[in-house]
Amino acid sequence: MLTLFHHPFCPHSRFIRLALGEYAVEPALAEERAWERREEFLLLNPAGQTPVMVAEGYPPIPGASVIAEYLAEQYGPTEDGTGRDLLGKRISERIEVRRLLAWFNEKFFTEVSNPLVTERVYKRHMREQQGGGPPDTDIMRAARRNIRYHLAYVGWLAGQRDWLAGDNLSYADLAAAAQLSVIDYLGDVPWSENDHAKNWYARVKSRPSFRPLLAETSAALPPAPHYADLDF
Amino acid sequence: MLTLFHHPFCPHSRFIRLALGEYAVEPALAEERAWERREEFLLLNPAGQTPVMVAEGYPPIPGASVIAEYLAEQYGPTEDGTGRDLLGKRISERIEVRRLLAWFNEKFFTEVSNPLVTERVYKRHMREQQGGGPPDTDIMRAARRNIRYHLAYVGWLAGQRDWLAGDNLSYADLAAAAQLSVIDYLGDVPWSENDHAKNWYARVKSRPSFRPLLAETSAALPPAPHYADLDF
Repeated sequence: MLTLFHHPFCPHSRFIRLALGEYAVEPALAEERAWERREEFLLLNPAGQTPVMVAEGYPPIPGASVIAEYLAEQYGPTEDGTGRDLLGKRISERIEVRRLLAWFNEKFFTEVSNPLVTERVYKRHMREQQGGGPPDTDIMRAARRNIRYHLAYVGWLAGQRDWLAGDNLSYADLAAAAQLSVIDYLGDVPWSENDHAKNWYARVKSRPSFRPLLAETSAALPPAPHYADLDF
Repeated sequence: MLTLFHHPFCPHSRFIRLALGEYAVEPALAEERAWERREEFLLLNPAGQTPVMVAEGYPPIPGASVIAEYLAEQYGPTEDGTGRDLLGKRISERIEVRRLLAWFNEKFFTEVSNPLVTERVYKRHMREQQGGGPPDTDIMRAARRNIRYHLAYVGWLAGQRDWLAGDNLSYADLAAAAQLSVIDYLGDVPWSENDHAKNWYARVKSRPSFRPLLAETSAALPPAPHYADLDF
C-alpha cells in the first residue's frame, strides 16, 4: 500500500500522481499543507515539502525526483518484459528525460509555478507569521513573463519530437504537464502563443492518468473555464 | 574521454569531481564562468549552469543529479562484481542516498553555499550588468545563520551512522563534503560547534579523491589557513 502526502496545487505532487497513474498504481492520498509545518510530517520529511510517499517496508520517500527514481526501479521495465517505461531504455534517452525532469521540476518551478501558486493560492491559507497576506503583484508579473519563454521551449521541443524527450511519453512530459496544469487552473498559461505546446498539452491532458487531477476543484477558487476541457 | 565543464567554487562541480575520483575516472576539466552566459556553453546546457559533463556518444549531461545517475549506471556495480557502489545496493539505501543528495545539492546549496559563494566569490568577477558589486552583508549573515542547523544535522547523522546515509561511503557524503568544502575554503564553517560533523568531514577530506580539490587555490582569494589541513 502506498500513501502519498500531497497538495492539490503542488506541481511536484501532481507529477507523482500522473506517474502513479501511468504505472496503474493507486495510492492513498493525504492532503498536507506543508506551510503549517506539522510535526508528524516533518518527521517523515525534515525538508518539510510535498510530495512524500510512504511505501510499506521502506523509509519515507521525499521529493519528486527521489520518488520518480524509486517508481522507475519498482514499476519500470523488467527482463521478463513487464513494467512500464517512463525513464527511457537507452542511456542517452535517460539523460534527456532526467535533464528535462530537472528543468521542469526545478527551473520552471522556481521561475513560474511556485511563485504563482504561492502568491495566488498558498498565501490565502497562510497566517501572517507563516508568510500569508495579499499577493505580491511584482512577483506575479515576473512569473508571467517567465512563462512565455518556458512555453516557447516546450513548443520547440514538441515541434521536433513526438514527445518532449523523444519518441515516447516519459517523465519529462508528465513533469512539464504537471507544472503547467497548476497554473492553467489559475488561467495563467498563454496557450494562444504556441500551437505546438498547446497540441502537445492537449495530448497529455487526454490521458486517463490526468482525469483525477482535472476532476478536482476548489469551491473557493474555481478553475479557469477551459481547465478541464480536453479541446481547449 | 570525459570533459567536465566546472567552476572551482561551484559545489555541484566539486561533488562530481569527487564522484569521478571515487570511480577512478579522470576527466578533462574546462573552467566555465557560467555567469558570462557563453553561447557555446548555453548550447551544451540551456539552463546555463555548471557542471556539465560531455561523454563521447551521448548528449551533454547537465547538473549534479543527472550526472550522478549517469555515473552510477556507467561505473556502478555490475553483475560480474566489478564497479564501485556509491548509490546503494538495496532500494532502501538508494532512497536515503538520493534523499540526502537532494538535501545537500538543493537545500544546503540554496540556503548556505550558493549565497555565500555568490556574494564572496562570483560577484568579484561579475560586471555590474551581470549582477556584480560589493557583497550583500544581510544575505551573508542569513547564510551563516543557516549553516549552523545544517552542521547540526550533519553531526546528528554522523553520530548515528558510519557514513551520512548508512554503513558505506556514498554520494551523500560526497555531496555534503563538496558543499561544505567551498565554504570551508572561505573560512565560514564553525567546526568547533560539532565534533561529530568535524570528525566525519576529516574522514572524507582524507580520501585520495579529495586531494586535487584541496590543492587548488586562487592567488587573489587565498583559502582559510586550515583549509587543506587534514588534521584541522
